[in-house]
Amino acid sequence: MPAAITPDRYDADTAAAMTAGSIDGLPSYLGIRTVEVGPATMLAELDVRPELLNPFGTLHGGVVSALVDHVLGAVLYPVIKRGHWAATTEFKLNLLTAVRAGTVRARSTIVSLTRRTAVVQVEVDNDGRPCALAQGTVLIVEPRRS
Amino acid sequence: MPAAITPDRYDADTAAAMTAGSIDGLPSYLGIRTVEVGPATMLAELDVRPELLNPFGTLHGGVVSALVDHVLGAVLYPVIKRGHWAATTEFKLNLLTAVRAGTVRARSTIVSLTRRTAVVQVEVDNDGRPCALAQGTVLIVEPRRS
Amino acid sequence: MPAAITPDRYDADTAAAMTAGSIDGLPSYLGIRTVEVGPATMLAELDVRPELLNPFGTLHGGVVSALVDHVLGAVLYPVIKRGHWAATTEFKLNLLTAVRAGTVRARSTIVSLTRRTAVVQVEVDNDGRPCALAQGTVLIVEPRRS
Amino acid sequence: MPAAITPDRYDADTAAAMTAGSIDGLPSYLGIRTVEVGPATMLAELDVRPELLNPFGTLHGGVVSALVDHVLGAVLYPVIKRGHWAATTEFKLNLLTAVRAGTVRARSTIVSLTRRTAVVQVEVDNDGRPCALAQGTVLIVEPRRS
Repeated sequence: MPAAITPDRYDADTAAAMTAGSIDGLPSYLGIRTVEVGPATMLAELDVRPELLNPFGTLHGGVVSALVDHVLGAVLYPVIKRGHWAATTEFKLNLLTAVRAGTVRARSTIVSLTRRTAVVQVEVDNDGRPCALAQGTVLIVEPRRS
Repeated sequence: MPAAITPDRYDADTAAAMTAGSIDGLPSYLGIRTVEVGPATMLAELDVRPELLNPFGTLHGGVVSALVDHVLGAVLYPVIKRGHWAATTEFKLNLLTAVRAGTVRARSTIVSLTRRTAVVQVEVDNDGRPCALAQGTVLIVEPRRS
Repeated sequence: MPAAITPDRYDADTAAAMTAGSIDGLPSYLGIRTVEVGPATMLAELDVRPELLNPFGTLHGGVVSALVDHVLGAVLYPVIKRGHWAATTEFKLNLLTAVRAGTVRARSTIVSLTRRTAVVQVEVDNDGRPCALAQGTVLIVEPRRS
Repeated sequence: MPAAITPDRYDADTAAAMTAGSIDGLPSYLGIRTVEVGPATMLAELDVRPELLNPFGTLHGGVVSALVDHVLGAVLYPVIKRGHWAATTEFKLNLLTAVRAGTVRARSTIVSLTRRTAVVQVEVDNDGRPCALAQGTVLIVEPRRS
């Protein structure tokens, strides 16, 4: 499996800020906690709870996809230049097994990085058992010149 | 662009029940409303609100992916045999533009259907402007023989 | 299903050149013929022949993916500025049915276009029967400033 | 990154036969050589040559996608029951860099396996430099009962 890249730049302050508190908006609403942020990798998790289920009593696939979308883009922040923007432009997700309870953890890894794009893979497990895999592309957008 | 299939079976009662009320769990938590369910197609929507944003003030991609995941699997229910199960096994999503306000609507269309799998495409717009496109696979699971 | 975009620019000479002859390299080796090129859409085809089969006697999925890759990027050429480059950066392909004989035709449609990227959908049929669907992203690369 | 699964079944004779000779049809036509087949993993390669280029003189993305399609399905053969069929139903491919010369090698790994489906990841390199990544789904089809 591909190794994480070694980025030219890594801002430890940005990484530390990412794990320090909850993030307003959807991450907080779904209960996403950022556990760990390193150069080219990031780990976030959430607990299964009734609001996140589908009508059949298992975790809604949309929760997994939202967690994946989150770590897929956010892993870029300590790596891109300050003022640049990381926009997830697409991803593909395989859902491997139904999840009923416990904690879901997603680890993202930057596996390719150019000036304009990054390719990121994401592994998701449920209390240690693999439950989803994703691969996606992030566009790195320069700030507008004024 | 591929046309919707014409399914052999379409249960109008199931379709009517899907639009009659909100669905407990994630759909209700995100505010997803099922607008319309027909043979091989379905429309659902949600309103942008603060809990669904990312820290940059635009709709979190995870909300779009959750809405996509929802309509991708649910469109199968009036079409599969009673007791069968439609499990979204994978999808791929392109996010086209940032969404800031208004309503996001996702229309899913079954474009291929066999005994075991369906391929579904999803178009998402924000107040009429296309904002995402997806394509995914649903496994149709028979009930366990006891 | 999403409509083709209406591009700001369309170079009919480039389009005409694309249908005038076979393209050296892989397209010619696989027997790909460019049938039609319009603004934001393109049609190419190939005939099934023994060199393109898998060991089970059906068309190798790799032939379909190669045809898809071809029309996914090439549809951009009449639309992007002269000197710019269209590089397919990713795509996702669903193979719907086995193909045994006849002609395989792939139509690509640009469904989203920004200054930097295009999203393209591709429908593939085998003598009129849908056999594959794809969705992918093309990066539009500016020439290096010297 | 996800580990290979440990399959319940592994037929070393099938694996040995896969590396013993070239495979008629597309694999032979493109010059694909099967280098190594193990439980849940497989390595195949091809040499860049003029017939496989695009008009810009780099390896056509369709060659990479064909090689990916090949190893994505074939890795299942020593693992599934005799008489069963492994049909690649979909995959997603990121093309990371242009390839100009040398050898392209694709390693596939089964990362999830149920009775009905497998999820496979593929890494492709060009003389050691990563050039593509893919993730896809294979349907395992039982022989028809007669």
